[in-house]
Amino acid sequence: MQVEIIRDQKTERHQAEPNSNLMDFLVHHGILLNSDCAGRGTCGKCGVKILSGQLSTVTAVELKHFSQEELDEGWVLSCQRLIKEDIVLEIPKIEDAVNRKIELQNFSQERFTDPNLEKFFVTLKKPDLHDQLPDLERLLQQVEDIKKTGVKREAPLGVLNKLPELLRSSSYEVTAVLMDNALIAVEPGDTRESQYGFVFDIGTTTIAVYLVCLKTGKVISAGGETNPQASFGADVVTRISVVSEDFNNLKKLNDLVVETMANLMKELLHENSIEEKYVYHIAVVGNTTMSHLFLQADPRNLVKAPFIPCFKGRMTVQGKEMGFPMHPEGEIVVLPNIAGYVGSDTMGVMLATKIYDQEGYSLAVDIGTNGEIVLAGDGKILTCSTAAGPAFEGAQIHDGMRAGDGAIEKVSIKNGKVQLKVIGDMAPKGICGSGIIDAIAALYKANLMNFKGQLLDSSKLEGSVDENLKQRMRRNDNIWEFVLAFKGEYGNERDIIISQKDIRELQLAKGAIAAGIKVLAEDLGISTAQIDRVFLAGAFGNYIDQKNAVLLGMFPGIDVQKIIPVGNAAGEGAKMALLSKKQRELADHLSDNVHHVELSSSDAFYTSFMKEMIFPKKEVGQEVVK
Amino acid sequence: MQVEIIRDQKTERHQAEPNSNLMDFLVHHGILLNSDCAGRGTCGKCGVKILSGQLSTVTAVELKHFSQEELDEGWVLSCQRLIKEDIVLEIPKIEDAVNRKIELQNFSQERFTDPNLEKFFVTLKKPDLHDQLPDLERLLQQVEDIKKTGVKREAPLGVLNKLPELLRSSSYEVTAVLMDNALIAVEPGDTRESQYGFVFDIGTTTIAVYLVCLKTGKVISAGGETNPQASFGADVVTRISVVSEDFNNLKKLNDLVVETMANLMKELLHENSIEEKYVYHIAVVGNTTMSHLFLQADPRNLVKAPFIPCFKGRMTVQGKEMGFPMHPEGEIVVLPNIAGYVGSDTMGVMLATKIYDQEGYSLAVDIGTNGEIVLAGDGKILTCSTAAGPAFEGAQIHDGMRAGDGAIEKVSIKNGKVQLKVIGDMAPKGICGSGIIDAIAALYKANLMNFKGQLLDSSKLEGSVDENLKQRMRRNDNIWEFVLAFKGEYGNERDIIISQKDIRELQLAKGAIAAGIKVLAEDLGISTAQIDRVFLAGAFGNYIDQKNAVLLGMFPGIDVQKIIPVGNAAGEGAKMALLSKKQRELADHLSDNVHHVELSSSDAFYTSFMKEMIFPKKEVGQEVVK
Repeated sequence: MQVEIIRDQKTERHQAEPNSNLMDFLVHHGILLNSDCAGRGTCGKCGVKILSGQLSTVTAVELKHFSQEELDEGWVLSCQRLIKEDIVLEIPKIEDAVNRKIELQNFSQERFTDPNLEKFFVTLKKPDLHDQLPDLERLLQQVEDIKKTGVKREAPLGVLNKLPELLRSSSYEVTAVLMDNALIAVEPGDTRESQYGFVFDIGTTTIAVYLVCLKTGKVISAGGETNPQASFGADVVTRISVVSEDFNNLKKLNDLVVETMANLMKELLHENSIEEKYVYHIAVVGNTTMSHLFLQADPRNLVKAPFIPCFKGRMTVQGKEMGFPMHPEGEIVVLPNIAGYVGSDTMGVMLATKIYDQEGYSLAVDIGTNGEIVLAGDGKILTCSTAAGPAFEGAQIHDGMRAGDGAIEKVSIKNGKVQLKVIGDMAPKGICGSGIIDAIAALYKANLMNFKGQLLDSSKLEGSVDENLKQRMRRNDNIWEFVLAFKGEYGNERDIIISQKDIRELQLAKGAIAAGIKVLAEDLGISTAQIDRVFLAGAFGNYIDQKNAVLLGMFPGIDVQKIIPVGNAAGEGAKMALLSKKQRELADHLSDNVHHVELSSSDAFYTSFMKEMIFPKKEVGQEVVK
Repeated sequence: MQVEIIRDQKTERHQAEPNSNLMDFLVHHGILLNSDCAGRGTCGKCGVKILSGQLSTVTAVELKHFSQEELDEGWVLSCQRLIKEDIVLEIPKIEDAVNRKIELQNFSQERFTDPNLEKFFVTLKKPDLHDQLPDLERLLQQVEDIKKTGVKREAPLGVLNKLPELLRSSSYEVTAVLMDNALIAVEPGDTRESQYGFVFDIGTTTIAVYLVCLKTGKVISAGGETNPQASFGADVVTRISVVSEDFNNLKKLNDLVVETMANLMKELLHENSIEEKYVYHIAVVGNTTMSHLFLQADPRNLVKAPFIPCFKGRMTVQGKEMGFPMHPEGEIVVLPNIAGYVGSDTMGVMLATKIYDQEGYSLAVDIGTNGEIVLAGDGKILTCSTAAGPAFEGAQIHDGMRAGDGAIEKVSIKNGKVQLKVIGDMAPKGICGSGIIDAIAALYKANLMNFKGQLLDSSKLEGSVDENLKQRMRRNDNIWEFVLAFKGEYGNERDIIISQKDIRELQLAKGAIAAGIKVLAEDLGISTAQIDRVFLAGAFGNYIDQKNAVLLGMFPGIDVQKIIPVGNAAGEGAKMALLSKKQRELADHLSDNVHHVELSSSDAFYTSFMKEMIFPKKEVGQEVVK
């Protein structure tokens, strides 16, 4: 039977077996609902809205979570229902910043045939006096016969301790587990179905985790958590400074992130009833500072000129060294950083977008707490990092907040009316990055702000500006500000405004990105108009209004049609490295061959930055909303 | 000035610096005196006898250890004296079984140019804004420039944690430590002089250890200890049986050997004032059972047909896994076993003797608690293991004992008189392996025993036999025995005899070795007379009277001139693998290509064994002592 899924105004259709559990079905198709209770129905977070068709009957736990009105609207807990006939359903917007990051909308279905982790089920010939090959060599020889290539002739102590008994008690039918051609485990019987890995994207603000089936390459489950290092500072510079103050803080920062990651793993394993011993491989990406803190590498020189990282190459750590809930002989691989602040998360973006292999010129922009930019073309790849700044995360903005419940995420002005969209459909509490871009673009389009970013004196505004909008303009300490929502207007407890300073913050942030793009284009000897496509990575890239971003000049000279949002491409790239040796080696190759442009010592950057802080002049015929 | 050293009736001469410490000088030339006190003079074990010339004056501690008579004879503690002029000295026979094993008489001076462990002193260019290469890559690139080959682009966590500070606090002058092309440590300044390794030969009865300078390849110091697993049984079969009874005993046996090895290392490091962190590599050899117990590999199937080891290949363990006093990222390598009971100790013998590369046909025999035999020629290498049995270790012999103080180690009969040589020049307490061979050979030569190994009725002996000898023949429960030493004859507290059963034990032991040699020769299609040389390895091989061994038929058809004692070749071979990648790879290659002959299922062996238990008929003209 057919299930039609509407999400983010897009529709997809999949065939379902009768009586499949709806949540399992959705997860199987890469739709990751929030679920803290592993399908027991207690957390109530896996709700979806049925628009047509019937499921199995309502359960007692659903009656606790939904009002009669919600039930009548079609709300169900997907973990509680079975698919009985064709249905159409809608996935609600996921509601907090962590989920915005973990929601990988672009899981590739690419299959790899060169896995790092391999399982071989073998039935060994029993030894006798004429065939006295030792147990280990007997096993490895059989594996080589299947694999057709050599394997490393060693085994960890744990295998040597158990192998003889294991072979004999399982009638010589066992599964050999190989990581990079080296035996790491032997399991009784055929366990080829059980092979899992994790992908971590350690952001400065948010840690995202994906549980991956290494056999199918599919993401089974996802989760996320605020990076607890935030208690030591919101940005990387502050976190490094606490290490400079006291080197013991490096261990503390490391403990925080490692413990959170271990807990995230435990939760996902528990939810999916997967045993730790079947987790063999983990791929980690993060910006350069996050990579350093995860590996307890000394990060102190990253914040002092000449800004030298401790390392940049791919690093491998054994499971037993990190204390993760996984096979102790399993491996944790941290993808290579590129240079300076351009970390392995950007490497993930490069792998996921295949930017190294596209026709013409391709740009990738990953906007998080920092902004990393990659420009590829003419057989070269350039990259830089800009302090895009925390404005896009809602920080240093008068009423800024992260993209969570109550954040204004979209703003438009139509017919003199301000229209807001609030995450969670509730009274607004503040404004997040995408809302700030929208709001400032709307002010510009409504002629309430000039191209220099100055809010205009409302008394001098032309009569053509709607009176309603004029009333939202006011002076505070002689500085203009615009009121998006007066106290009580939408049930909000205080005025929510865009201040002149907020606009300056945005100018700094978007100016840095625009200047970074320009400098890279200049270094490559092209104009930005020659860029054929822009991969916009990260949760922020997925949620901003691209037209408004272009209107404000974030992507100078680039047509909005060229922008392709790619979701959490960093995580996707890490997943590719988890599943393929070649992708891992490609990452090494890219790390060695990408040219990093250090903007902090670039005059061209500063010149460009000054220019790009202003907003582009509105073109003739461009929509001006009054 | 010249020092002439007399040891084992051989003389060597070396030049000494004036005022060199005598013990240091001797150790430097590979003469390893027993020393438990690291040269403090308290143990009194490093005594040597000065035959001519004067040293620095006698010290107070020497007065405690030597009588006036001994001082007059020339005895000195070598740790207490400085060389002042040309001298001649005699090294006393080392007096216990452990020292007999550790005394490597044949340290090769072979230099290798492909070390496993390498140290590179580098002075790095300081980074600046135009050269932002990360610290690790900066270091590795410089190392590659010196090394001219690629190195692994990773580093252990400990390096990442310390590298940035280390580089800056040491003015970018550091030493990189590489094991198999992978960075394992970075040290401030130039530490190339400090690089050490250990070689262990884990015998069933004795553990021998050698501290090796990895830079010069020289053995700096040696030590040994009785294998404490003996408390679980004297032979390998008994030790495995206690594991079969309770698998937890495997951990106990492992703990015993690992702890003893760690203590031996600590002692040698302390004596030589070497820091643990400068120990990077350890090579271990032992028979198959010892290798299993050292790695906690399940050994239980070694004693049940079809006698299957858990593993045979080379195994590598990190220092931190074993808890040894060494660099935690350093490596412990266990050389590959060959097959069945033929272990990595025999592999060591093969490496040390280069048996794989000799002209003609070469035999190697390593007699310990078991006897391993290797026959090489015509591009093939065959090996087998015989239960030579503990007779050669003095076990299962009426008055048998190990080769320690009070053991009769040489016996001859001249002019009707029995002549004994006792280890430690004291009253005899028993007889060790080499003494047993001598005694039985003497009985045979004196016509007191026939070629079947029967002691003859003294009443029926011809008159030509000396009356003195006849008096030493007596019946006990109607079985003949020969009295080597009547109670009190040499201050001994009881009669010391050779019984008919002792002769049978020797026949079993030498018969097994002889039959093993014959079977291998037959498999290779040659007669034993075609064998060009016999490498006789092990302490036992060093001490037996070769003529007597040949007389008794231990080496059937082989001329005594062909026998070359090679000392602890197992340890020497392990040292070669410690110092050279090629030697290590050669060991892998040999392990895969040596053909193992399983004697327990060989009819040819049993047929030969029956024949070889008797003694060869004495040739016409052979010396018959009356």
